[in-house]
This record gives sequence, structure tokens and C-alpha cells, in this order.
Amino acid sequence: MGERIYLYDSTLRDGAQAQGIDFSVADKQAIAEALDAFGIDYVEGGWPGANPTDDAFFAAQPPVKTARISAFGMTRRAGRSASNDPGLQDLLAVNTPTICIVGKSWDWQVETALKVSRAENLRMIADSIGHIVANGREAVFDAEHFFDGYKANPGYALEVLAAAHAAGAEWLVLCDTNGGSMPSEVREIVAAVKAHLPDARLGIHCHNDTEQAVANSIAAVEAGVRQIQGTINGIGERCGNANLIALIPTLMLKMGFDTGLSDEQLTRIGQLSRLVDDRLNRAPNRHAAYVGASAFAHKGGLHVSAMNKDSRSYEHIDPALVGASRLILVSDKAGRSNIVNRLHQMGIAVDDSDDRIGDLVKAVKEREALGYAYEDASASFELMALQKLGTSPSYYELQSYRALDECRIDAHGKRFTVAEATVKLKIGGESVMTVAEGNGPVNALDAALRKALLPHYPELSAMHLNDYKVRILTPSEATAALTRVMIESRDDDGHKWNTLGVSHNVIDASYHALFDAITYHLMKARAGK
Amino acid sequence: MGERIYLYDSTLRDGAQAQGIDFSVADKQAIAEALDAFGIDYVEGGWPGANPTDDAFFAAQPPVKTARISAFGMTRRAGRSASNDPGLQDLLAVNTPTICIVGKSWDWQVETALKVSRAENLRMIADSIGHIVANGREAVFDAEHFFDGYKANPGYALEVLAAAHAAGAEWLVLCDTNGGSMPSEVREIVAAVKAHLPDARLGIHCHNDTEQAVANSIAAVEAGVRQIQGTINGIGERCGNANLIALIPTLMLKMGFDTGLSDEQLTRIGQLSRLVDDRLNRAPNRHAAYVGASAFAHKGGLHVSAMNKDSRSYEHIDPALVGASRLILVSDKAGRSNIVNRLHQMGIAVDDSDDRIGDLVKAVKEREALGYAYEDASASFELMALQKLGTSPSYYELQSYRALDECRIDAHGKRFTVAEATVKLKIGGESVMTVAEGNGPVNALDAALRKALLPHYPELSAMHLNDYKVRILTPSEATAALTRVMIESRDDDGHKWNTLGVSHNVIDASYHALFDAITYHLMKARAGK
Repeated sequence: MGERIYLYDSTLRDGAQAQGIDFSVADKQAIAEALDAFGIDYVEGGWPGANPTDDAFFAAQPPVKTARISAFGMTRRAGRSASNDPGLQDLLAVNTPTICIVGKSWDWQVETALKVSRAENLRMIADSIGHIVANGREAVFDAEHFFDGYKANPGYALEVLAAAHAAGAEWLVLCDTNGGSMPSEVREIVAAVKAHLPDARLGIHCHNDTEQAVANSIAAVEAGVRQIQGTINGIGERCGNANLIALIPTLMLKMGFDTGLSDEQLTRIGQLSRLVDDRLNRAPNRHAAYVGASAFAHKGGLHVSAMNKDSRSYEHIDPALVGASRLILVSDKAGRSNIVNRLHQMGIAVDDSDDRIGDLVKAVKEREALGYAYEDASASFELMALQKLGTSPSYYELQSYRALDECRIDAHGKRFTVAEATVKLKIGGESVMTVAEGNGPVNALDAALRKALLPHYPELSAMHLNDYKVRILTPSEATAALTRVMIESRDDDGHKWNTLGVSHNVIDASYHALFDAITYHLMKARAGK
Repeated sequence: MGERIYLYDSTLRDGAQAQGIDFSVADKQAIAEALDAFGIDYVEGGWPGANPTDDAFFAAQPPVKTARISAFGMTRRAGRSASNDPGLQDLLAVNTPTICIVGKSWDWQVETALKVSRAENLRMIADSIGHIVANGREAVFDAEHFFDGYKANPGYALEVLAAAHAAGAEWLVLCDTNGGSMPSEVREIVAAVKAHLPDARLGIHCHNDTEQAVANSIAAVEAGVRQIQGTINGIGERCGNANLIALIPTLMLKMGFDTGLSDEQLTRIGQLSRLVDDRLNRAPNRHAAYVGASAFAHKGGLHVSAMNKDSRSYEHIDPALVGASRLILVSDKAGRSNIVNRLHQMGIAVDDSDDRIGDLVKAVKEREALGYAYEDASASFELMALQKLGTSPSYYELQSYRALDECRIDAHGKRFTVAEATVKLKIGGESVMTVAEGNGPVNALDAALRKALLPHYPELSAMHLNDYKVRILTPSEATAALTRVMIESRDDDGHKWNTLGVSHNVIDASYHALFDAITYHLMKARAGK
């Protein structure tokens, strides 16, 4: 196994600086526990004294097994002793094994922002680190604006690091605070630091302002850095921080480093990524490296036929190493081999040379040209495939529906809207007609369908609508545009399935998606799965 | 100015391979025109013969000013002459100045996927390139799996490039097809290719599977590559392609290369990025490098004047260079001055201390918390502001509307749908009731409103609906979700305006957006502008 790289997570501190991110104390505790359970070395919990959430987190630190909780703060103020500095007192009071202190390393910043002498800045850093170490804590030094500072005045930037090192800092972390450095600069500057301070343990802290935070971190590791500061999913101010979720598999699988994580722990990296998205109520990025839903998805027909011959053709790693699995997509770009593969995955046995496969490929291409998108609606795809193969189930027959939407304004200017739908269905030879109201016409139609079907198919009570999306496919025709509706449904066991409908009429598109959702649910429920 | 780097956009071909992306022909045409207008060198339009959308795009290629449209395809099949190969015939038939041919450069792939001899693969590449050049087209050669191939058998990978070069390929593009290469590998291998084929013009094509597609492209440029293939916003299969939107500013502002774009063109890069998101009906990534809404956002507490003086402390480039502006996350006071600024921009004179401004700030905050998005619907914002200031115009009063949607299936299984809407309005004291049909309920409602209003407001004949978008704001409630409708309208002089409506009911949300669109048009038309 290769050299050890230490992982320092700042999701709860630097990540929380991002626009739109608002962790509760419970979020912070849950994320800290998950980081520990996953096997991250350092968990930076926040900045004591900065806000009530961070204070509450440190007052009730979650139990950790192996991670070190770190508290973040800044060097003592000018003209005070470290032991009398209220910021440092707050930091020491929260009783974490590790404290990370940020200090300035760009001389121009020392003069214009801090407005102290360069010598006093060095003393502020050395005193603060020394005080933390004297109190028995591990000190991490974040050298703010280090790369900009080094480019402006390399001598002073190195003096800053040397001061922190001499005072007992365990780690000297080089920060690309503005996120504008290039990997070649990072590599060169880290090498110069390494040559100047051969005994120091170096860390790196990058931001993604040129979309190179991961590459900058990797370049720093190649030049000798052994701690990486980053966040889960790269969340952070402006364009975000270095994404630990992308870095960890690369460090382990491509560079052979020891991150302290076992192979088994690595397979849980997708869970960690999704836990943070769930806490933030965000849809996961399906294109995320290693963990995105599309990271090992294959769409082109050319690729899929090669994929069957050997997965090395189109996958840079075995998806199982990061707990992921291969996904074959059905779409306009798909060839015969994608479709046969999909059918096999669904448990539908067809022969590669079956004539009906050609019809199905043609039908998919024609419908996708109209605006259908089967790759995100695999239940609708499965139903269409079964129909083309002559084995699709039928649970009811639509005779008519009507959706009515009415708005009236009374004499006081008060607005009343009502949506009502009627459906007429043939269910097992019997004609059934029902009517229901809803929040809108689609909701009313859904209610009327359920009212008609439930007495015949009680399994329907276990089906719920989870998500409803509308997309206009030809927006230049404005309200006459073609509409695509996608519905995600789930059952009581948590299974989910996706269906779609396309029509010029949004109600009709919704009806088709509802019809497929119901048919698919009944088919699966009756097959006992 | 530095050396020239050529930009080759594959949004419409490789980008279209991404899960969830399905461009219509109109989308492709609009994006190709925008890429040309922005100043991209090459626009790869698709793969002739692969699907109906690509064929329709090439059959009706948009007019371009400076970009070269490129068609993508593969080498001739084994055991055929290039002139008799149907794929190459399709490619030549679409009549683009440039043709990009993909060929295999990994010997293992040649044997297992193509199942031809290494020598035949070289002939397939040379014949195909030669045939394209003989037909007077510029040939670009995409060396598939080049980095994996080079790592496995450098001699053969170089032979492949040499064959394409000797046959007359203008560009040899090194593809990291699986996206798993590291920047240090890319740099080293590109340098070896450059040493082996010093006369060849090299390109790079990277994927983002380790979140390093941008860094890999930059490393290749540093090693001598002069063409970059990528996509707008990095869309593409699996984790996406190299993101041209992140690369272009870095190449120009940090590396001093000439991309053929002027400084003025660079300021329009955010517009290009948003146009592609709009076409895909996606919310833009607010954390995107250079163009994201948060890319130059700074948290509250910073003094704007200090920021202006010391912007180097917080920003790696001047946001104006990429057409962006600094965003200070607002306090209540800053919110007030923003709104006053916006009213002044609209020509509405209000005093900073006017009490009604406070009401307006409160209303905007409350409505935006519900899901309104006024920054994309400035006409609706203006109408709401006028209403709060007590000066909003009124052209009619709604008394009621009704939208009816009916679907019947006849005895032969044929489906009939009809949408009909009725409106009852008070126009200048007169009560008017009209009914109209449409493609769907919203289209019918639009038609009925126009029928009622046109005799009183003939200016309405000059108003057209340009775009109609629906977004579900609380998707977890499924069909009962809150719906936001945004409408873009235009007049005969080409002016455009955007309005919105939010409701649980999609018809009602649409009515509100239509109402604002009509009111805004009449107000502007009657003011003579």
C-alpha cells in the first residue's frame, strides 16, 4: 500500500459558506457522524463563536469512532497576548482534539486588510499556534491566500509557514483562497515549499473557480502534500471547494495512496454523497464523478455493443469498486444491442435475432424524435416493449375522460377555482364512471381514476405519486407546444418507477403517464414482486 | 497575443449522448447559431444517418458566419472501399466543410471490438481520411481511446496517428474516451506524440470521469495541443465532456492564448451558457466557474466599498471580463436599494425613502419564498411594483373562466381529444363572454381571451407568445405540487417580455402569466413604445 494521505473535511465549515446552504444543528451532527463512520480523518465542525448553530454543534459534539473533530478560528488579534484573546479562548473552550487556525501569508493582505506590520503578523501566527500546542491540542495552520502571496512575495510567504512550523503546527495547509491558481503553478510552488521546509507536513485547500480544484489538489499531492482539505460534493462558497468525493477514489484506485479507508469503506462513498444532498434537500448531480447516477451509464449504441465485448472499452474503473453499477440506457442513440440488453435486465427473454427487436428499435427512435425520453422512464419503455412483443397486460380500457377547470371571481373580488374530472372506464366487461375534484385538472383526473379502479384493484392503494414534471418540447410554438409529462411513482415498499406521456395537450400527456404508472404497478404487484 | 487555440464544440453530438438530454431539431439549430454568433471555430452538428434528429439538422443547416459545421462519423467498414462505404457516403452527402472521423487507436480494441487485423485498421483510417480529403473536405481524426491505447502499446497508437496524418488529416485529436486519465499522464503522452509527429496539428478530447476534464485539456495545451474539443456547460455522456465555458476564460485570461474571440465576445460567455440550459429547460448551475450566479457572490458583512478597493482579496479575476458582476448577498437595506435601482432602470421615479418601497421589498421576499422568480420575469415584476405604488393600469376585469378538456375513444379505438375554454370579462363596463378551442386547455384559454379583447384592443394582434415553460416547485407532492408558469411574449417589432404565474393549478398559473403578458403589452403599446 502506498503512502498515507490524510483527509480533512470542511463541509460543515467552509462548505456552509455557500450561497443557499443552511445546515441545522441536527444536519451538522448527522453529517459529522456519517463522515466518521465512512472513515474521514478530520471533521471540521465550524467556527466557535461565529454563529449559534456552530456553538450548538460544539456544545453537543456527536460521538466519533476514529475521526478527529476540528474547530476553526483565526490568529490572535494584533497587540494582545494569545492567552487573553477572546477568539482563541472560544476555540480552546470547545475542547476538540484539533484546532485549525487561519493566518495571512500575502504581505499585501497583511498591510491592507490586517493593517499590521509583517513582523507582527508572524508573531500573531507563532503565538496562536504555540498557545494551542501548549494546551495539548493538535494545531493545523491554514495559510490564507498562500499561492497569491507566494507569487507576490515568495520570501515572506515562506517566512509565514516557517513561523507556524517552528511554533509547533502539525500541518501547514496551503490555501488557494480565491481559487484562481493553475495546476502547474500549484505543483511548482508546493515543490518549492517542500524544498524549503523538508520536515514540515503539508496540506492543500483548493477552490473550484476555474473548475480545477480536484486537479490542483492532485498536483499538490504529486508534489509532496499529504493532507487534503475539501468538502463532500464540492459544496462551498462561489464555485465550491475541492470535492472529496471525486478525490478519494482517484487517490486510492489510480494513484495507489492509502487514505485510511478500506476497499469496503470505499464502496460506501455514494451513500455519503447522497446523505449530504438529502440533508440539503438537493437533487444529486447525476453527472458527478464516480457516484453520479450517470457515471457508469451508457447510451450510444456503438459503445454498448463494444461494452458487451469488454467493459474496459468504456469504463475507466470497475463501478463495483465505488459501490456503483453499470446502467444501460435506451434512447434515440441506442442500437439494437442496447435494447436487447435492457430487455434482459428486465427479465424479458428475447433472442438477439428476433424480428420484433427491429420494430422496437424503430418505434423507440420514432417516438424519441417526437420528444419521448425513455431513458428516464424505464417503466414506460418496458410496457411499450411488452406491447411490441405482444405480451402487454391490460387492466382497464379508457372510454372517455373529461377535466374541467373553473375560476370565478365573486362580487368582493375573491377568487374561487375548482378542478373536477370525470372518467368512464371499462373494467373486466363492466362500465364504470366516476368523478372527483382535485387541486388542478391532473390531480382531479388521478383521483377519478383511482376511485374507479380501487374496488377492482385494491393493490392500487399501495401506489403513490412521488414526482411530476412537465417539459415543453417545442417552446417556440408557445401554448400550442408539444408537452412531455414524466411521473415518478413509488409503492409502500419504497420501489420507484418512472413513466411518461407526450401530447400537444398537457392533460392528455399526463393521462398517458398516469396510465403507464398504474399499469406497471398492477403488473408488478400481480406478479408478486 | 499568444498562439491560436481552436475551439471545437461537440455539444450537439457528444453532448447529446448525455442521459436526460434530447435536443429537438429546433434546439440544435438555435444552439449552432448561438455557437457561431459567439465565435466558436467548429460546430459538430451530429452523426448523419444515426437518427432522424441529426439527419433533419444536416438537411436544414442554419446559416453560419464564421464557424465551420462538422459532421461526425466512423471509418469505413472492414473489407470495403471507402467510396462504397454507406457511412462515408452519408457523411459526404450532408455537405459540411469539415468531417470528423473516429478510428480506433488501442490495439486491443482493434482485435476485440472491431475484429480486424492491426494493418487493416490502419488502412481503414487512411482510406477514410484520404477519401474525405479527395472530396475537398477538411478531415479531423478523433483517435478513440488514445491514452489507454498509448499506455498499452505506444508504438501502435503512434502508427495510427501517423496513418491519419499521412492521409491528409488536418487535425489529430487525442481522445481520453473513458475519461480516466490523469493530467500528468496526458501531459507526458502529448509531449511524446509531439516529439514523434512534430508537423501534425494536435487536438484533445477529454471526459470528466475523475472531475479533471478541464485540467486534462489544459495539461494537453501546455504540452503542445492546439485544438480543444468540448461542450457547453460540460454536458456529455456519463460525467460529461470538457467544459468549454470553464476553459475559454482560463485560456484567454490566465494563459494568454488567442481563441479567436475578442474581449467583447468573451463577455457574452454567460449568455451562451444560459442559452443551452434554457433549451434543455434546466436550472443553470449557480456554482459554475466564471458564469454561475454564485461565481462572484460574496457573503454579507463585507463592505461594498472595501470590496471595490481590495477586490483582489476576494476575486481571482475581474468579473466584468466574463460579463459577470459581483453579487453582494443582500441585507434588508441592500435589498431596498436594489429595488429602487431596478425601478429607476424601468423609468419609474420613486424616492429612496418612499414608504411603499418597504411594502414592495416585503412582497417580493414573500412571493420569492413561495417560488416566484422575478429576475426572469421582469414584466411581472414591473406590474407588481406599479400595483404597490398604486399606478398599475387595468384593461379588463376577469369574472370567470372555464377550461374543459375531453377525450373520447370511439368504437374503433380511435382517440379524439378536444380542449375548449370560456371566459367572461368586464371590459370598460361591458360584459363580454367568449368561447374558443385549442390544442390544449391553456391554448384554448389564450384563444378565448384574445377573442374577447381584440375588438376593444386591436393592439393585441401584434402580440405573440414566444415561449411557455412549466416548472414544478414542490415535486414531492406529485400532481398536487405548486406550479410555476413562465411565458415569453414578443411584439411585431421584436421586443420581448417575460411574465409568470404561480398556483397549485397549472391552468390558473398559466392564466396569471397570460394576464400579465397582455396587461404589459397594452400598457407599453398605449404609451407608444
